[in-house]
Amino acid sequence: MIKRRGTLFVVSAPSGAGKTTLCREMRLRLPELAYSVSVTTRPPRPGEMDGVDFRFVGEGAFHAMLARGELAEWATVHGNLYGTPARPLENALAAGADVLLDIDTQGAAQLRTRYPEAVLVFIVAPSMAELEQRLRERRSDHEGEIARRLQRAREEIALWRRYDYLIVNRDVKEAMEQLASIIQAERCRTGRLGLSFPDLEVPN
Amino acid sequence: MIKRRGTLFVVSAPSGAGKTTLCREMRLRLPELAYSVSVTTRPPRPGEMDGVDFRFVGEGAFHAMLARGELAEWATVHGNLYGTPARPLENALAAGADVLLDIDTQGAAQLRTRYPEAVLVFIVAPSMAELEQRLRERRSDHEGEIARRLQRAREEIALWRRYDYLIVNRDVKEAMEQLASIIQAERCRTGRLGLSFPDLEVPN
Repeated sequence: MIKRRGTLFVVSAPSGAGKTTLCREMRLRLPELAYSVSVTTRPPRPGEMDGVDFRFVGEGAFHAMLARGELAEWATVHGNLYGTPARPLENALAAGADVLLDIDTQGAAQLRTRYPEAVLVFIVAPSMAELEQRLRERRSDHEGEIARRLQRAREEIALWRRYDYLIVNRDVKEAMEQLASIIQAERCRTGRLGLSFPDLEVPN
Repeated sequence: MIKRRGTLFVVSAPSGAGKTTLCREMRLRLPELAYSVSVTTRPPRPGEMDGVDFRFVGEGAFHAMLARGELAEWATVHGNLYGTPARPLENALAAGADVLLDIDTQGAAQLRTRYPEAVLVFIVAPSMAELEQRLRERRSDHEGEIARRLQRAREEIALWRRYDYLIVNRDVKEAMEQLASIIQAERCRTGRLGLSFPDLEVPN
């Protein structure tokens, strides 16, 4: 019997679209999903834990990982470096686990190249006005930072056609249902079942 | 603003896989789904209503509809003719309604040719032994009929790779969730949203 390879689900979204909340809730709802703790050079926000939310490293350590080929993707976002360790990701997929990654648009493009069979999901706020309001409610960012994030959001939204699925996050519960449906539906795709269909007694 | 075209969902399954129950339940759960009443030359089973379950017609009337090009697909199954009226189907899709059709493998192949963007879902029982038991429990068929349905099921199951999705119907509730997920996920596919994305303020 051939073991099923896991599916890589990559979720991207401009700041304020609700991606972090959605991915956190999805991991509670589908605890069988493997995920990856990213490494980053940005400083922790209040409440973030090293090794849980991110692995917080210095620039030197990040560049050393990159030089050793230890990152499946990496990107610069708002001047900070982010990356996904390759080894744990490969191990999870090879073991048949589905993996949910929360990755920016640059990283998602790299993952698409490396894993053409990955499923890319893009999450957007219902409008730019709504996005701006959400960024202001977060309160951790000053005006210049908000303006910078909005500009970057415009640039990222223009890339939505690169993704397989689009979720317009009007309501967290509805968006959760959509993301869960995408994961469940992809598990039924015949293209993914081609090598791993042990139960069906098909005559040859 | 460009109106979104509906998506055609085609569900096929060998007899006894649970397709009829699933499609009926799905219409209760997603009442916005349009569907089509097939025409057939087979006699009604107990409890079936003309114009609701099927339009029951004679062979002459069926061939006349075929000759006038009024059928989107048609097939012979167990010696009876079945067909899908084209006009109501076209109207529903053009009006933006998603349509759920319950069609055998021959008809599904015709619909794939006519509507390449259709979503094809194949439902199977978990094993041939389980399928045989379900056919026996139905009691409406005699031994020869059961043997004929089992042989046809084997031939149909071999076609599963032609479909986009496969649902192994171990449990009706689980299979319902999977079918609902497929419908919801397809509504989020960027390829289907390409011409109908009015809300997002994308800079050009």
